[in-house]
Amino acid sequence: MVAEARRCLAVVLAAGEGTRMRSATPKVLHRLAGRSMLAHVLAAVAEASAEAVVVVVGPGRDDVAAEARRAFPGAEVAVQAERLGTAHAVLAARDAIARGYDDVLVLFADVPLIAPGTLAAMRDGLAEGAGLVALGFSAADPTGYGRLLTRDGALVAIREHKDASAEERAVTLCFAGPMAFDGATALDLLGRIGCDNAQGEFYLTEAVELTRADGRRCLALSCPERDAMGVNDRVQLAAAEAAFQARLRLAAMRAGVTLQAPDTVFLSHDTAFGRDVTVEPHVVFGPGVSVAEGAVIHAFSHLEGARVGPQANVGPHARLRPGAVLGQGAKVGNFVEVKSADIGAGAKVSHLSYIGDASIGADANIGAGTITCNYDGYGKFHTAIGAGAFIGSNSALVAPVSIGRNAYVASGSTVTEDVPEDALAIGRARQTTKAGRGAALRAARAAAKAARQG
Amino acid sequence: MVAEARRCLAVVLAAGEGTRMRSATPKVLHRLAGRSMLAHVLAAVAEASAEAVVVVVGPGRDDVAAEARRAFPGAEVAVQAERLGTAHAVLAARDAIARGYDDVLVLFADVPLIAPGTLAAMRDGLAEGAGLVALGFSAADPTGYGRLLTRDGALVAIREHKDASAEERAVTLCFAGPMAFDGATALDLLGRIGCDNAQGEFYLTEAVELTRADGRRCLALSCPERDAMGVNDRVQLAAAEAAFQARLRLAAMRAGVTLQAPDTVFLSHDTAFGRDVTVEPHVVFGPGVSVAEGAVIHAFSHLEGARVGPQANVGPHARLRPGAVLGQGAKVGNFVEVKSADIGAGAKVSHLSYIGDASIGADANIGAGTITCNYDGYGKFHTAIGAGAFIGSNSALVAPVSIGRNAYVASGSTVTEDVPEDALAIGRARQTTKAGRGAALRAARAAAKAARQG
Amino acid sequence: MVAEARRCLAVVLAAGEGTRMRSATPKVLHRLAGRSMLAHVLAAVAEASAEAVVVVVGPGRDDVAAEARRAFPGAEVAVQAERLGTAHAVLAARDAIARGYDDVLVLFADVPLIAPGTLAAMRDGLAEGAGLVALGFSAADPTGYGRLLTRDGALVAIREHKDASAEERAVTLCFAGPMAFDGATALDLLGRIGCDNAQGEFYLTEAVELTRADGRRCLALSCPERDAMGVNDRVQLAAAEAAFQARLRLAAMRAGVTLQAPDTVFLSHDTAFGRDVTVEPHVVFGPGVSVAEGAVIHAFSHLEGARVGPQANVGPHARLRPGAVLGQGAKVGNFVEVKSADIGAGAKVSHLSYIGDASIGADANIGAGTITCNYDGYGKFHTAIGAGAFIGSNSALVAPVSIGRNAYVASGSTVTEDVPEDALAIGRARQTTKAGRGAALRAARAAAKAARQG
Repeated sequence: MVAEARRCLAVVLAAGEGTRMRSATPKVLHRLAGRSMLAHVLAAVAEASAEAVVVVVGPGRDDVAAEARRAFPGAEVAVQAERLGTAHAVLAARDAIARGYDDVLVLFADVPLIAPGTLAAMRDGLAEGAGLVALGFSAADPTGYGRLLTRDGALVAIREHKDASAEERAVTLCFAGPMAFDGATALDLLGRIGCDNAQGEFYLTEAVELTRADGRRCLALSCPERDAMGVNDRVQLAAAEAAFQARLRLAAMRAGVTLQAPDTVFLSHDTAFGRDVTVEPHVVFGPGVSVAEGAVIHAFSHLEGARVGPQANVGPHARLRPGAVLGQGAKVGNFVEVKSADIGAGAKVSHLSYIGDASIGADANIGAGTITCNYDGYGKFHTAIGAGAFIGSNSALVAPVSIGRNAYVASGSTVTEDVPEDALAIGRARQTTKAGRGAALRAARAAAKAARQG
Repeated sequence: MVAEARRCLAVVLAAGEGTRMRSATPKVLHRLAGRSMLAHVLAAVAEASAEAVVVVVGPGRDDVAAEARRAFPGAEVAVQAERLGTAHAVLAARDAIARGYDDVLVLFADVPLIAPGTLAAMRDGLAEGAGLVALGFSAADPTGYGRLLTRDGALVAIREHKDASAEERAVTLCFAGPMAFDGATALDLLGRIGCDNAQGEFYLTEAVELTRADGRRCLALSCPERDAMGVNDRVQLAAAEAAFQARLRLAAMRAGVTLQAPDTVFLSHDTAFGRDVTVEPHVVFGPGVSVAEGAVIHAFSHLEGARVGPQANVGPHARLRPGAVLGQGAKVGNFVEVKSADIGAGAKVSHLSYIGDASIGADANIGAGTITCNYDGYGKFHTAIGAGAFIGSNSALVAPVSIGRNAYVASGSTVTEDVPEDALAIGRARQTTKAGRGAALRAARAAAKAARQG
Repeated sequence: MVAEARRCLAVVLAAGEGTRMRSATPKVLHRLAGRSMLAHVLAAVAEASAEAVVVVVGPGRDDVAAEARRAFPGAEVAVQAERLGTAHAVLAARDAIARGYDDVLVLFADVPLIAPGTLAAMRDGLAEGAGLVALGFSAADPTGYGRLLTRDGALVAIREHKDASAEERAVTLCFAGPMAFDGATALDLLGRIGCDNAQGEFYLTEAVELTRADGRRCLALSCPERDAMGVNDRVQLAAAEAAFQARLRLAAMRAGVTLQAPDTVFLSHDTAFGRDVTVEPHVVFGPGVSVAEGAVIHAFSHLEGARVGPQANVGPHARLRPGAVLGQGAKVGNFVEVKSADIGAGAKVSHLSYIGDASIGADANIGAGTITCNYDGYGKFHTAIGAGAFIGSNSALVAPVSIGRNAYVASGSTVTEDVPEDALAIGRARQTTKAGRGAALRAARAAAKAARQG
């Protein structure tokens, strides 16, 4: 637990070019579980109670700046005009650091899975008197990573792989990037970092030596390797996604959700479940979904921005789009799309329907193939269906229109006018049947086919 | 092979509270591959030729009792009123044990993947003279498990992890829970188990010492770790599901089924395949499905209670519900749902249709968007379509109704009356076309939109 | 790099019975990523610039012969009448070998993932003077495999596992099957291989000893184990599919495609992606698909033979069949099937539609539930929809038919006649509404239900 009195500034470095992503989108705006990498880091920062954030972006990156401000209201944005190393990047936040904070966290927007608890532990290290805390992880294969060298519990150096001795290479504690600095000395320390190296850049790692030279203690803190993953290309992006999904699925199962096949269910960072929810294999949750107790989500369903009520039944092959709200025990079945619509308690839309911009009363039954015609090419219009109404199959309801309580719509109808409570609406042609004409038609068509084929 | 003359009683312990499941459903009723854990164990018992079963349930667990009787007709149910340990639980079956059996198996409903062959091997141990056989598995990580300690091929003790010496902790053969007892002495033995331990409970593991004290030999039998998995929470439930799915998929592939991506295909305990069936990625089989030789199940299909004939073609994106029966070479295509319906040989329902409570004759062609209107809000009615019939697209067939052999239904029709063989039915309005009125409508709507937007 | 002047013959052995596949289809015609195993090997051969190919097939295997000629135009086919070992099989290609080539590659159609670069490296070994090059792989578990025994960089023997000494069994470099021979001596060498072994068969492995006896150097070349997988049953087929999918996914991600969950996306050998394509989880690509820059393929989509334009938006739950061509920014939404149809730039088919044999102009809007009725039971007919047209929901367009630019079709219409530019077409019945008749109908149906239930 971080002492409450300590004030914390987080500097989030988000200026990398990310050329290995091969993307027109800046690296830190690529998404994991429905949220940008940058937003992941900012969410961790917020949970760890930092009171101020500076996001350091590359020149002209208004898109990154906007995402920073969206994800962390009040975030400041600083521009790193030239790319001269990590220490140089942090100094883009010089003004904020100079305001005076107890703790200064330096984080990387492309190390997106860092956990709030890890940030708290880094701050604890400062609170206990360290001048610097560097974050590491125990690598399954440390090759290529910088090593955190420790002695008597203190961090003594961060050694690049290429500079490491054989003995040092046997160390598996590797540097993850994030660091925490004592705010009282951070600006002075950062200012003293030099660029006397092959690349001529200013590296944060040099801060360890300087801190020790000042007689201050440095610490190495270790987190799980999967929390420390850096993302530089799309293969690593997929690996980070997998790690984050595993974290989300585990939390859901522990909270009492049955995931029959966890590896085939994709959650968003904010998916919310009640107890005893069952999710079949092959389900995708976009952002903004909540599923209440006892609901069942069948296979091949896709949900986004939807609220599923208790004991509701979704899919298989259902799509709930933003604004779909299902009442208790409601059913949305196969090949049904629901958007901006309330489906009342116990109401059923079981097959092959499109319900958009609509409200459906409790216990109404919507027949297979029903379509709410909500769009006229210019605007969207509402369809209101009363409780207990019965909409016959293959009906088109041309909005704006309302169907009263307990009203009936005959199968195959196109409904263009309101239907009062208890009324019956029919909007279809009468059948005519012509004996033998099927056979005649068949003969004519066969002949036409023969003619076409010459 | 168990000597045929030996009579066997299985006592299945199913009284655990399962609080770590965080569920309103009792733990042993949670499902794996479409079958409750309890039913899995009872199926293994039945395959291993036990002639009697007692399921021990907690007080008031009528739901567990009912599942026991459903899954194993003739199963007895005994109630463990207080939770005083495993030996105490087994003694809830005292009356059955007292009837006299050669072999008494003690099994756990939350160790659901135990294989029939393992039970047979345990019984073999008794037939060869052992007084007790304990089931173990060689654990990848034995930490926390009780160890089976053996000497000269005999089991000498079951040691809890916390009580084990360093040498004993190096043993990787761990206790899985199930045991087999010589029926002649089981009741006496169980009655002598005491509760002189920290918890004050009666533990089956004490039976090893007692049996040895009686001068009888105990045996340890090993099964694969994945068959010995215990399920205490939903994470373990998912792991058990994965293990069981792997077993089912392997059996299917060995029998001549192509699973292009086995990890994405979910089977039920009873899924039955003919030779040369092909299953694409991402398919879910609920209970009660059989698929005959040469059929192809395309991606994103969901089948349950369905019979798929030889060379039939299902999906992608098809849903077959209980009672769907597809004839030889029949085709059910994308976004098609079939329920309680026979699809004749060579018949095609290729796109966007709902076929419920229907029979479709051989070689009939059902156009895209066809819907059988089988429900009137009160009952379900039948649609009969003759062989060779052609149902035009976007038709609604209002049941009860029959379409004769080789009859034609025009596209867009709502059919409410029977159509004789060879006849043509049309149930749609005639088109009217108004020159320029599209442009006028467009202008009016654009104006309305502008007005709405103020 | 193989010296350009060298001429190369590949002999591909495809005569195995494959009984462990338990299939009516010959083993080498089973498919990986949408292509037969035989075609995979022939593609590698073509990429490695072999100028001639002989495929050795079993008697009567016209299907294998046809696939050989399809996959490698100009491939010769030789029949191995009796199964007398691998050397005997190669000699079925005696006439071709006798024509004189610099390099003779012997490959196996059931070792399908061999990489073109590996073939090139084998040829390099010949170019550098070796008489024989054998392909091996470093096995995680070498048990059962033949070992490649080397000394001073040369291959000295291929030792079967059962004949290997303890020291030799410690060797992990295992024989994969493929070999390369100096073409000048290959025929003579093969002719000297005997059948003095337990099986009485002629084995290629004997060529090592003979080559060395002639004073020629033999080489062992190593490739990754996953490239050397042999396929003998459907479990191995699934493993090879997984290995090949991993190769395809990695290449896609490295080229700048986001695969949110790579393990759930199935590609074909020829799937082509532009930069910044995003593929959600659970997508299947059949053969012949290209997706241009910036397009998004949502979950549960199935594409085959389709061209997706830049920034187009597909799915979720979309199916694109052969001949589907989507223009820039076009949208094909949920439960929509497109076949042999051009969807113009910016056009939208968002919900529950079947578009077959059609062209849709730019920016047209196709309402939910629209169906092109392209089939009359005998032939397929075209639907043309002009740019900017608006097709109301639940419409059926009976082909051949054309809808002009900016025309309107009212919801629920069946369109059987052409609609001129700017016109409005209505083909639906007028609604009639009967007060109280819904309640009456409901009462009557409830009474009927009660009567049915007796």
